[in-house]
Amino acid sequence: MERKILGIDIGGTNIRGAIVNENGKVTNREKISSDAKEGIGKLVKNLTGFIELFNIHKPDAVGIGVPGIIDQKKGILTQAPNIKGVENFPVYSELNKKIKIPFIIENDANCAALGEFWKGAGKNSNSIVMLTIGTGLGGGIILNGDLWRGEDGMGGEVGHIIVNPKGPECNCGSNGCLESYVSAEALKREINSHETLKKLLAKTPINDKPENLMKLALNGNKMAHEIWKEMGRWLGIGIVTITNLLNVETVIIGGGISNGWSLFINETLSEIKKRGLKAPAKRLKVKKTELGDNAGTIGSSYLAIKHLENL
Amino acid sequence: MERKILGIDIGGTNIRGAIVNENGKVTNREKISSDAKEGIGKLVKNLTGFIELFNIHKPDAVGIGVPGIIDQKKGILTQAPNIKGVENFPVYSELNKKIKIPFIIENDANCAALGEFWKGAGKNSNSIVMLTIGTGLGGGIILNGDLWRGEDGMGGEVGHIIVNPKGPECNCGSNGCLESYVSAEALKREINSHETLKKLLAKTPINDKPENLMKLALNGNKMAHEIWKEMGRWLGIGIVTITNLLNVETVIIGGGISNGWSLFINETLSEIKKRGLKAPAKRLKVKKTELGDNAGTIGSSYLAIKHLENL
Repeated sequence: MERKILGIDIGGTNIRGAIVNENGKVTNREKISSDAKEGIGKLVKNLTGFIELFNIHKPDAVGIGVPGIIDQKKGILTQAPNIKGVENFPVYSELNKKIKIPFIIENDANCAALGEFWKGAGKNSNSIVMLTIGTGLGGGIILNGDLWRGEDGMGGEVGHIIVNPKGPECNCGSNGCLESYVSAEALKREINSHETLKKLLAKTPINDKPENLMKLALNGNKMAHEIWKEMGRWLGIGIVTITNLLNVETVIIGGGISNGWSLFINETLSEIKKRGLKAPAKRLKVKKTELGDNAGTIGSSYLAIKHLENL
Repeated sequence: MERKILGIDIGGTNIRGAIVNENGKVTNREKISSDAKEGIGKLVKNLTGFIELFNIHKPDAVGIGVPGIIDQKKGILTQAPNIKGVENFPVYSELNKKIKIPFIIENDANCAALGEFWKGAGKNSNSIVMLTIGTGLGGGIILNGDLWRGEDGMGGEVGHIIVNPKGPECNCGSNGCLESYVSAEALKREINSHETLKKLLAKTPINDKPENLMKLALNGNKMAHEIWKEMGRWLGIGIVTITNLLNVETVIIGGGISNGWSLFINETLSEIKKRGLKAPAKRLKVKKTELGDNAGTIGSSYLAIKHLENL
């Protein structure tokens, strides 16, 4: 009989879940609030309640994507900036008390990369780097079909490639990280440093939201479009470092900011053509996410299927 | 009976060779001129003659490191800037006519990385990135014990991490690559841009040689030392990008410029501490090559041993 997996994607705001079959087909999507800001206790309670909702589908395993760093050897969630008060939380042993079927936990950006690799924009590639551009800039690296997690589960932190050592201060403490040029936060900083744009957007509900900047640019506002183009150039510079260093087949761009694709991608590609080493740049395909919001649940399901195979 | 491997390391100037046993013990070192500048025909002739010199030791296989990019699937040497007139040379089929024992060919920087991984500064590490700082800046990446060659054999081009998009023009066509700050060429550019240093070094045989800058700095010349420190800072910035992206266990620094170790390493480590993501930076060990000039022959022998195991 065909296996059914419950794929879970925990975010700072919501927990998404869906039943995913062995061919990556998604059904029975559900969503609840994660309450991650109320702490790990509340989150675990919400999560386990949410998982029980799917009992009627009799899933064979659960794959769980979390917005944090997992140390797979020790079975702990070492850090998670968006979940209140989490440091070195023994996530495997705690969930083991409550989840009665096999489960596996992985960083959310890694899950998104695995999802795209399995069923999305990377499905015919041997090696991919996924960039998830949202509030920040996350990523995942798959080489020869295997996720490279890094020695502490922190491989793929593409947001912290240094592109300009004297650039803006980054949340990580360094300066000029890629994330400080390519993220929703970076776009907001640009909006707020342009008085004309600030005034134009002052009437909209959340006036420095990147979506508003996107609408302005798509409606022909040149200043707004120039900000997107500049973001595209920095993204291209970051991708050149990735492709020169790793010579991968495909770079996939996802996350909310990827919705502005037409506003920045030409500058990105032009920077790669101008600056990249010839063979790797020629080889490289730069693609937009195909799975969108489903990448995480599909990727965590893929891991759960592999996990079942190894039991 | 114990296997004996002939390890070869082809450089722009010399071909080095040695007999290496299965424990990595090196004996019978030899060296001849490569005449690489006279073209691939002369180089192949020199190489095959050199290999015959070792016949008396009856090696079971040959591992060959070359200063160029190998496409292992197609068996061709796609490019090699220091060998005259080489593009897409069918190196496996050509050498197959002349070498009568099993052989394997690999990029020299990858061989150096494998050598250090097997028997040198990386021998207890699961993942390493090797930086070979010579005329240029080459590298090799080993993850979970496997060489990551990249899809075109161009993985590990650490010299072309972009550290300053508006920096000096690089040989590759881009600007501000790590190599344009961290290499013998970069140090020469600095010497020639400082009139006082130029005058001081005018009496020495090759006056802009980095060795001379090293002697000056070690003798207490502050201007000379400042150039080494500045190189160390850029190296640190490049290593931060590597460790944030790959979260490897060890970065190993080799090549002629690594002989200036005490002149730059403090600045490198301080930059990593200041800028790196906490867990990966804390984990990271930065080490000097332990095998020096032997890294290449030992690494190519390691590949040849693996090759024999897979035959």
